[in-house]
Parts: sequence; C-alpha cells; structure tokens
Amino acid sequence: MTDRALAERVAEHLKGLRARKPLVHNITNFVVMNYTANALLACGASPVMAHAPEEVEEMVGLAGALVLNIGTLSPSWVDAMALAGKEANRRGVPVILDPVGAGATRLRTESARRLIEDIEIRVIRGNASEVLSLAEASGSGATRGVDSVHGVDEAAAAAADLARELGTTLAITGPVDLITDGRRLCRVANGHALMGCVTGTGCTATALIGAFLAVVADPLEAAAAALAYFGLAGEVAARTAKGPGSFQMALLDALYMLREDELAEGARLETA
Amino acid sequence: MTDRALAERVAEHLKGLRARKPLVHNITNFVVMNYTANALLACGASPVMAHAPEEVEEMVGLAGALVLNIGTLSPSWVDAMALAGKEANRRGVPVILDPVGAGATRLRTESARRLIEDIEIRVIRGNASEVLSLAEASGSGATRGVDSVHGVDEAAAAAADLARELGTTLAITGPVDLITDGRRLCRVANGHALMGCVTGTGCTATALIGAFLAVVADPLEAAAAALAYFGLAGEVAARTAKGPGSFQMALLDALYMLREDELAEGARLETA
Amino acid sequence: MTDRALAERVAEHLKGLRARKPLVHNITNFVVMNYTANALLACGASPVMAHAPEEVEEMVGLAGALVLNIGTLSPSWVDAMALAGKEANRRGVPVILDPVGAGATRLRTESARRLIEDIEIRVIRGNASEVLSLAEASGSGATRGVDSVHGVDEAAAAAADLARELGTTLAITGPVDLITDGRRLCRVANGHALMGCVTGTGCTATALIGAFLAVVADPLEAAAAALAYFGLAGEVAARTAKGPGSFQMALLDALYMLREDELAEGARLETA
Repeated sequence: MTDRALAERVAEHLKGLRARKPLVHNITNFVVMNYTANALLACGASPVMAHAPEEVEEMVGLAGALVLNIGTLSPSWVDAMALAGKEANRRGVPVILDPVGAGATRLRTESARRLIEDIEIRVIRGNASEVLSLAEASGSGATRGVDSVHGVDEAAAAAADLARELGTTLAITGPVDLITDGRRLCRVANGHALMGCVTGTGCTATALIGAFLAVVADPLEAAAAALAYFGLAGEVAARTAKGPGSFQMALLDALYMLREDELAEGARLETA
Repeated sequence: MTDRALAERVAEHLKGLRARKPLVHNITNFVVMNYTANALLACGASPVMAHAPEEVEEMVGLAGALVLNIGTLSPSWVDAMALAGKEANRRGVPVILDPVGAGATRLRTESARRLIEDIEIRVIRGNASEVLSLAEASGSGATRGVDSVHGVDEAAAAAADLARELGTTLAITGPVDLITDGRRLCRVANGHALMGCVTGTGCTATALIGAFLAVVADPLEAAAAALAYFGLAGEVAARTAKGPGSFQMALLDALYMLREDELAEGARLETA
Repeated sequence: MTDRALAERVAEHLKGLRARKPLVHNITNFVVMNYTANALLACGASPVMAHAPEEVEEMVGLAGALVLNIGTLSPSWVDAMALAGKEANRRGVPVILDPVGAGATRLRTESARRLIEDIEIRVIRGNASEVLSLAEASGSGATRGVDSVHGVDEAAAAAADLARELGTTLAITGPVDLITDGRRLCRVANGHALMGCVTGTGCTATALIGAFLAVVADPLEAAAAALAYFGLAGEVAARTAKGPGSFQMALLDALYMLREDELAEGARLETA
C-alpha cells in the first residue's frame, strides 16, 4: 500500500528542486551525456559536464551534487572521478555513483569498488547484478544472498546487508525499484517497460537522484522522489509513444510537464 | 526483380535477432553513440560501448559481434579497436568495420587499412568513396575502376574485385546499396532520402549489420538483412516525418515496430 | 524597428548556404556533437567532427569553417583546437569560438583566452557572463562596464569596447541577442524560452554561425543571419512542442523546413 505521507513529501521535494534549480556536476559516459543533460534541465536542475582533472575540483565546488557514472570509463576518467569525489566530500556536496557494467569486466568492478573506497557516496544506483557485484569488495558475507535469493524478501534483506556494509543507500532499479539504507526500505512501483528500450534510462535515473540529493537531506527520500517522478513520467510518456523513439522524446516532455499534485497522486511508494 | 527467397530469409533473420538479443560491443564515435545504441535496442539487440584497452578484450568475449567505427578516431582508440578485434578473431566473434572518412585524411585512411591488415573483418560498410579509398592498401589493380567507372555494372565489378582482394564482404551504401563478397552480389533498394539528412545513419546501418552478424553466419546475407530492414524502416518513418528531427525519432519507432512479414513483403533485394 | 534590408540579405545568405553546402569542421563537446551535427545537416551544411592532432590540420583544409567549443574541454583537446585554428588562419578558413563556461573555472577561462591569443577568431559566441569573462585577458579597461552595467545601452557599449580590444565580432546570446564588431551593432529578437530548456542550443547557435561564416564574408552579418534563422526556427518549433523533448525534435524540423521568404519576413533584426 502506498505510503501517502511519503508521496506528499516527494511532491514537495520536486517543488523544491524546481525552485532551487541546483547545478548538478556530471562525470558520466559519452552515450548518455546529451539525454541526461536534457533530463536534468527538464526536471528544473542545471547540468554541467566536466571531466578534466584540471577543473573537476573547482567545478564541483559550484555544484549542489556530483554524479559519477562509469558507463564508458577509462582509467584517466576514473581518476578524475576520484578527484572530484574527494573534493565533493570535503565540501559536503552529495555524491551518487552509477556502477554501469560492474560485474561484467574487471575494470568496471574494480573501478566502482575503488570509488566506493575512496569517496563517501550518498547513493549507489544500479540494476541488481551491478549492485550485487559490489558486495565482494567487503570480503564479508553480504553476498550470501546473491546466489540463493529466491524471493523478494530475501533480495531485500541481502540489499539491506550490503547497504550497511558499504555505508550508503542503495537504489536497485528494475520492474519495481528497491531503495534501502540498511535500516529502512522503500519500493517504487512506477515505471513502464519502454524505459528498458531506450539507452541511458538507468543513467538518467541516477542523474535525477543526483538532482534531488542537492535539495533533499535524506538520501532514501531523495532516491524515492527521483524514481517515483521518473517512473511516473515514463508512464505518462508511454500513453502517447509509438515506440522507443517517440517515447524517448515524450519522456523529456513528461519530466518537464508533470505537476507536483500529479506526482503526489501517482507515486506508488511502499515503505517498510 | 526482388529475390523473394532471400526476402523471406531476411525476415527470418530479423526474427532470430529479436529472439536471441545478442550483445553487440561497439567501439564507435562520439557523435552517434546514443543513436546507434538506441537503434540496436530497437532492433532487439543489446548494445554496449566500451573503449578502454584495459577492458575491451574481456568485453568482446561477452559479445556476439564487434562494431568498429573510426568516426572520431584518435590513435589510442584505434589501438583499442585493434586489441578488441584480435581478441574477437581468436574467439570467433564477427567484426564489422565502418571506415568513416577514409580517403579524407591520412589518419583515417591509414587507420582503416591498419585495422583491415591486423584483423579479420567480416564486413566493411561505407559509402563508395570510403570503401574505394581502401583499395590502394593492396597495391594492386583493384582501384583501376575507381576513376574510370562509368556505369553501375563497372562499379559492381570493381567492388567485387576489391572484396576478393581484401578477403571480406563489402557493403557500399547509397541510394541503392551494393553488397558483395567478391563472388556474389546483392543490391538493396530500400531507403529514403531523409536518411541522408540525419547524422549517423551510415553508422547505424553498420551497427545493425553487426547485430545481424551475431546471428547470421553468411555475411552477405547478414548485411542484406540489416540494410533492407533499416531501409524499409526509413521508408516507414518518412511517411509521418515532417523533417529530419521527427524522422530521426520515427526511424527508431519503425525499427522497433516493423513486423517480420512486413520485411518479407517490403524488402527490395536483387541478387546476381 | 527591423532593418528590412538586412532581413532580406539574411534570407539570401540562407539561400547561399543551402546552395553551397559547406563542410563545417567541429572540435566540440561530447554533449552536443549529435545535435549540432544534425542542426548543421538541417541547415544545409555538411558537418564533420575530428579532434585528433594527427588529422585536424588536414581536415580543416577541406572545410569552409572551423567551430571550436570548449564545453567538455581537456588540455589535449585545447591543443588540438589551437593546431586546427592556426592552420585555419593560414588557409583563410574562418574560425568561431564558443567559450562554454568561461568564467566558471580557471581551465575554461584560460583555455578560451589562450585560443583567442593564438588564433585569429572571426566570431566569439557565448552568453554575457562567458563573453565578459574574456575581458580581463587584455588587462585593460574593457571590463569597466561588467559590474556597473545597469542598462541595455551600457551593456552594448561594454560589448563594443571588448570587441575592439579582442579584434573580433562578439555574438552575445540571450532573450535578445547582441552582435557587435566594435563599430556596428545588431540586435536579434528572434527566439523562444524553450530554447533554454534544451541542452546545447547555445552550442548549436555557434555551429550555425560557423556554417554562415563559410559563405558570408561579413562576420556581423553571418552571425545575424544564423541567430535570426535559428531563433525563428525556435519560434516555429514552439508552436507545436509540448515540452523540451518535442521541441528539440521540432527545432531540427524547423531548421530544415524554414523557407527563405519566411526568414526575410520573420527576422527581427535591429541595427545601430
């Protein structure tokens, strides 16, 4: 059953985001730079993309949040992410990490783990296999559940274990999104299957969480707000889309047009 | 006259592609990364973009095909393409090359030739000037036709010569596409003029051939399937497009929506 | 009051651009590469993106204009811009600079200034804060107006001072665009608020000025033509757009469809 109080707060957070228009600094992948910049603009934030080691520390000092995404990583870019992330930590700027493809290649898994070790990360957003690939970093038993999870509740327990171990909030997206800080749990049921047919919707979800982190202190609530808002925009976009091309376009329109009362009404958020 | 049997097989190949959803590893240019990733998703494949020398060999081991595209090349990226290509050869993963701008600058011509020498390439897709610029690599007479080609048949004969010399299949796209492995010849008459008004449609054709190569053993038939499918989707998209912006969007929709029986019906393929 | 004679000439320039289809060489940022390439195609130009030091001099020799944009700069890319720019100067190919984010970080401000010192730049296009951040380069009094500008006329006088100092034409875009070569002044009132909700519209304006520079000798008139044409296309696109996604798409359609007589009619250009 939807947590109506949370849905109301989430709508307030969108209102706050649109009013404050935070600068969101992205060090992200080449594939999604244009689309995530447009999604950030559509939600009311102000995006900047900057990856040169010579400027990332200065740039993050101007920002309300830092988005790190390893989708087309190379070691020099990961170095720049570490630099920017440490400076963000010094300044209290929240950091979100998208460990794209972690688990698929050693470079991705190790780069994600290195960033998690070097930086205090407020939220990690990925799909289940990406997020669970981070578990072995700790050498502990957090992954006990990975191979043996048979039900939704066990998956949630494994995620909560991992969140505690990593000391962060995890946002695991899928047909139903799962957010946990190790103590609390939130499920977001908004979204549409066409979102899986457009590249970079996961990365866009990450960038939007980044935007909410700039204006919402509680990372679980920031992630819930971003994922409910993005998912609901996807539902709206799907009503008129004929396929992934028109859906991609309509999704930006929906992010821009969605009213806060529609979000309060349409957010499907369960907490536990 | 359309080769009806081939048109039927091409439709079967699309069905197979959609069923098997191969992972297609792209090392491509910055301009088209988003669009080709979306086109690959729309056709049913699963795209990944990865260019770091530290991971390309591992990544290509997970893939059903490797797409190399030198559109925004630099020497370090070409090195990564060579690494990935050699590993693809070792593993039997088919490789397709798009020699964007070969003939325009020495770096492009030489990089394309180097990749052709270092890697066994299943298909090369380019426009006529790009493909013919590769001829001199052999130091042989394959280019005899370049300056003196006055008719369609002479062009086809020159292309067949070059395909034999390079030991690959050539897909030369234009108003009518020409595919040859040096022995057989196929012409694809599908397509629409608006495709020339959107950046990266050539690159997208290449990526789609890559997707078909992952599921079709015969490179000539994989290229024919991809080009007929892409061209027919262009025809469908042009029916509703008002200009290149709406066309670019509608083309993704059409790739996603086109039914296999529509492809069997609409493919305009001539063989000789 | 609109300068009707200039509006007529501007429409002629669009006609000339579409007829001559100049190659425009871009060394630009990752975010906008796809969109600006599509905008250049839509206006009738032929875009190429090439950044490798090994080829930029050769590539710019084929081009009718060179567009430099530091939106996602790194020192090696700025080096390539300098190389390409100097060769452009040797060959008489006009150069336009977009100093994205100048004033925000030292790297951006210093890179923009370095390019201005090393290269003869025909037009600089930016927003007011970007352009005015270039003033201190001269160590002179051009910035006197920056902090004390209270009215439109004072801003124009400060811009004219700066244009004279830098020896270039400045195109300062905003709700009303201001173009000055230090002697003449032109205001362009075309445009729509949605242009600020799509990433890279500034960069696209720059690329379009580049295209016009390839066919128009007078830089002030080239900039006026590009900005009136782009702004009017924005007005047309806004008529049917539901939000920034559909606007982004419709803007490409409008660039492609806009007739020269519509531009002569709709251009809102004031000169002084």
